[in-house]
Amino acid sequence: MVGEAPAKQDAPPAVMALALPRAELSQEMQAYFAKCEEKLGYVPNVLLAYAHDDAKLAAFAALYNDLMLAPSGLSKLEREMIAVAVSSVNRCYYCLTAHGQAVRQLSGDPVLGEMMVMNYRAAKLSRRHRAMLDFAVKLTETPHLIEEEDRQALRAAGFSERDLWDIGAVAAFFNMSNRMASAVDMRPNAEYHGSVR
Amino acid sequence: MVGEAPAKQDAPPAVMALALPRAELSQEMQAYFAKCEEKLGYVPNVLLAYAHDDAKLAAFAALYNDLMLAPSGLSKLEREMIAVAVSSVNRCYYCLTAHGQAVRQLSGDPVLGEMMVMNYRAAKLSRRHRAMLDFAVKLTETPHLIEEEDRQALRAAGFSERDLWDIGAVAAFFNMSNRMASAVDMRPNAEYHGSVR
Amino acid sequence: MVGEAPAKQDAPPAVMALALPRAELSQEMQAYFAKCEEKLGYVPNVLLAYAHDDAKLAAFAALYNDLMLAPSGLSKLEREMIAVAVSSVNRCYYCLTAHGQAVRQLSGDPVLGEMMVMNYRAAKLSRRHRAMLDFAVKLTETPHLIEEEDRQALRAAGFSERDLWDIGAVAAFFNMSNRMASAVDMRPNAEYHGSVR
Amino acid sequence: MVGEAPAKQDAPPAVMALALPRAELSQEMQAYFAKCEEKLGYVPNVLLAYAHDDAKLAAFAALYNDLMLAPSGLSKLEREMIAVAVSSVNRCYYCLTAHGQAVRQLSGDPVLGEMMVMNYRAAKLSRRHRAMLDFAVKLTETPHLIEEEDRQALRAAGFSERDLWDIGAVAAFFNMSNRMASAVDMRPNAEYHGSVR
Amino acid sequence: MVGEAPAKQDAPPAVMALALPRAELSQEMQAYFAKCEEKLGYVPNVLLAYAHDDAKLAAFAALYNDLMLAPSGLSKLEREMIAVAVSSVNRCYYCLTAHGQAVRQLSGDPVLGEMMVMNYRAAKLSRRHRAMLDFAVKLTETPHLIEEEDRQALRAAGFSERDLWDIGAVAAFFNMSNRMASAVDMRPNAEYHGSVR
Amino acid sequence: MVGEAPAKQDAPPAVMALALPRAELSQEMQAYFAKCEEKLGYVPNVLLAYAHDDAKLAAFAALYNDLMLAPSGLSKLEREMIAVAVSSVNRCYYCLTAHGQAVRQLSGDPVLGEMMVMNYRAAKLSRRHRAMLDFAVKLTETPHLIEEEDRQALRAAGFSERDLWDIGAVAAFFNMSNRMASAVDMRPNAEYHGSVR
Repeated sequence: MVGEAPAKQDAPPAVMALALPRAELSQEMQAYFAKCEEKLGYVPNVLLAYAHDDAKLAAFAALYNDLMLAPSGLSKLEREMIAVAVSSVNRCYYCLTAHGQAVRQLSGDPVLGEMMVMNYRAAKLSRRHRAMLDFAVKLTETPHLIEEEDRQALRAAGFSERDLWDIGAVAAFFNMSNRMASAVDMRPNAEYHGSVR
Repeated sequence: MVGEAPAKQDAPPAVMALALPRAELSQEMQAYFAKCEEKLGYVPNVLLAYAHDDAKLAAFAALYNDLMLAPSGLSKLEREMIAVAVSSVNRCYYCLTAHGQAVRQLSGDPVLGEMMVMNYRAAKLSRRHRAMLDFAVKLTETPHLIEEEDRQALRAAGFSERDLWDIGAVAAFFNMSNRMASAVDMRPNAEYHGSVR
Repeated sequence: MVGEAPAKQDAPPAVMALALPRAELSQEMQAYFAKCEEKLGYVPNVLLAYAHDDAKLAAFAALYNDLMLAPSGLSKLEREMIAVAVSSVNRCYYCLTAHGQAVRQLSGDPVLGEMMVMNYRAAKLSRRHRAMLDFAVKLTETPHLIEEEDRQALRAAGFSERDLWDIGAVAAFFNMSNRMASAVDMRPNAEYHGSVR
Repeated sequence: MVGEAPAKQDAPPAVMALALPRAELSQEMQAYFAKCEEKLGYVPNVLLAYAHDDAKLAAFAALYNDLMLAPSGLSKLEREMIAVAVSSVNRCYYCLTAHGQAVRQLSGDPVLGEMMVMNYRAAKLSRRHRAMLDFAVKLTETPHLIEEEDRQALRAAGFSERDLWDIGAVAAFFNMSNRMASAVDMRPNAEYHGSVR
Repeated sequence: MVGEAPAKQDAPPAVMALALPRAELSQEMQAYFAKCEEKLGYVPNVLLAYAHDDAKLAAFAALYNDLMLAPSGLSKLEREMIAVAVSSVNRCYYCLTAHGQAVRQLSGDPVLGEMMVMNYRAAKLSRRHRAMLDFAVKLTETPHLIEEEDRQALRAAGFSERDLWDIGAVAAFFNMSNRMASAVDMRPNAEYHGSVR
Repeated sequence: MVGEAPAKQDAPPAVMALALPRAELSQEMQAYFAKCEEKLGYVPNVLLAYAHDDAKLAAFAALYNDLMLAPSGLSKLEREMIAVAVSSVNRCYYCLTAHGQAVRQLSGDPVLGEMMVMNYRAAKLSRRHRAMLDFAVKLTETPHLIEEEDRQALRAAGFSERDLWDIGAVAAFFNMSNRMASAVDMRPNAEYHGSVR
């Protein structure tokens, strides 16, 4: 015999490995899902995974949207770059797929997205971006080693106190989200893969 | 010279290392702080750290309270045991102090609290609790290695699908919270240390 | 200021970080480059990197072509799956890009390629493929822990003695190639990124 | 069901996991145990664990007492700080409990004791103490990376040649003692937990 | 230029990196050194390193001699095999040199000594010896993961309770001794290298 | 019982763990083997392991001989020092034995060979050699962290662009060869052990 063909890695039949039925969603969450459908063409599977419990879904969505979309000294692309660099350390298939797409889309640069997935050190980055990602990755790998000199390196790269909070908060959030995805084996929507290539 | 005396590790002058002024808080958040003062005698410093931004504080509090206080197949003590075992891996001074106290208080067993801080494998644990903490710690250390057999081990120990979600969610949350605390050097309230010893 | 735009991650101006002029190539190597141009439309940059020394280029090409293209109990796709899973452990930007493309092309399954890059444990794999990649990744991460029971696991999954050699040889080769790419900062051809998405 | 209560983590019924009967102790060791009873109110369980063999007990006690109690350029508190920081790396329940108490008692600062257990980097330390603990922890985690520049860092912080010996010796000793405690599952005396809180 | 010749790695001019003068030795320690000279032809440098303080030298010698030479269910060779396997994990040049020689001498098998230095898993070992070294190496690398099942594995391989103590004690001791050697850069006597090859 | 004697670690009955019959060798490979017999007195077992396939043997030999024997700014001894330092990280019994002997022979310094096997940081090395081995070991342990500053450190130590290639290539090659040896459990020729001691 010469080899064996791997199965086609189809779009997921289920959004996660847990058998949890969809909850009755609140008006607010129904509207949120409708807005996703309208703007993206689909509801991201992470939201469907949380939809077994309306309160948990609402809490997750509120936190996520504040972190990734609210006004900040970090651009949305910068926040997505952090998301992917952190998810690369944690080797999270769901988040690398979904947020890798976001980096490609927001930057219009497919190669940048790939670099964040594979090894952010391979990218040509400004001092600002290198400092930002170095902090996020150290916070991911060895949080107990973060000290004042790490914060000073961010300030020296031009970041404000509030920017420091936001860098820490986005990196910390994806350390949660990566683990939630791994805990329940979340599967990304098929739409991400081919987008902005 | 024979040695040098270390400085007294006083109650913190500031709740974190970032210079971020307190925001104008919403009615809801003011009421939340008042309730903390009334029930605990203080506002936990993690909330004061988030209080530079009302929306971020509200999102954090909603997520935290749902995870740690809402009805679940896991008791509040079990959720706190996960919190401390995860924080021990990440060596988070803030969370070990605050949630170590919570384990001591909810269990009435100071030694159990110490064991969760130091090495949960030293405790005499039921199969349920050992499986729960083993999953939480593996999810913390090597999330990319979590597979279906890890979930099956939890089911075999008697946990429901929803319990699996909750174990994953609490462990994931403290991987965020530990890193947020490290990113900004949060300092725990002095009240925790001597409580329930 | 709100953020900063990252530089466009263009096609590389140079194939590597070392300033080594192109050697006079032998007839055989010239013919090999011509065949690449004809079949692929470009000469892979790894070959251009080696082209500063004809003997080194010839030795590398002979080894590579024997391993990846010669008859074997492993299909070409299986060999490429090993290449990418190993390169993912070593976070090698060059090899993940070039061989990730090869997995996509040989399988016709873009998602399979992504999974090999991100975390091969996320893929639905046959017992054969899981055993093959588990061995390759263990050999990469902790070669000193490989023992007879690891070889037995391959045999139990249906692999022959010669297959064991080939799995080991491909995994070992990419541990060399990943490090050569990192040592000199090899940059992949731009053609790979958008191909078979 | 909502949760399950963990068993009370009582004082240990046995001092270790090995079934080794108490040896006939020499006069000297009997006197030593009597002095412990008189001064502390109990014999530390580590000594009871060694008491299955009089010669081993005597050798351990002589080494321990010389290291921790004999005249040195390091104060007793400094030696205990090293003991706890090393035991924290090795997550040794016995030594963290017993020597964490010693730090609390010698310093009169319960918070300092907690910080040594959880993450010594969280403490406000003088340059002297930070250099001392950094050396001890590096020696614990990666002894093969200790080189002359590590010793020079201690000298630059004001330590003498003999102090260097003593720092190395205390750190090295607890790398032994932590492992002996783990090998036989030593259990600390109940008295430590609530002391100096 | 083609290369550069490395300096000859001569016998050490000093036994360690610390400048500590020899203490006045007690009668007992003088006799011990004389016995070393007589039996070995030299005083092992580890003893010369401790000789800056008679009490420390005496305590070290008493512990060492009890562990490695006193009656035990483990042969002297078995204890030396543990010494070298542990020292290999810690990459301790002094102990690998001195105790590698001891394994060669006690076994009359130079290859066995080399295997203990390089990777004990490469040796053909009985179940007894494999279990013994696996325990010693796990205790060295991850002491916090040692649990009752690890002790049970030793009992199942035929070891008594006292043997378990001795395996743990020898492994623990070399975790101290390796670190002491690294802390002060101890240099082995030249006699070891060529002996029993 | 007091202990058990380990089996004699004899010369290997087989050169590897795979049952692969010797191929019909080409004239060229037969001549190569004859030359080995004539110059060394034996054919290195690594070549016998590859001899199940003439093309693989030829490709391996061509690569090996170019790397280790062809003209280079690195002396043959320097290349062997890299080989051993890399093999020490990977704890490869075959390569440590064979190339440890090469370092002893080319340098005439048995101690240098031992130091490369045990911990190259213990050797008195020139700046050139320390920089060379530090790069090779970092490339082995964490190839994804190699960046331009690592290459600059080599240039600052006097290495040319071509030397950088050669250092990277030798280090990368032994990361392959170590893993091939581990994958199939290659066993070194008995002649190496006692040579140049």
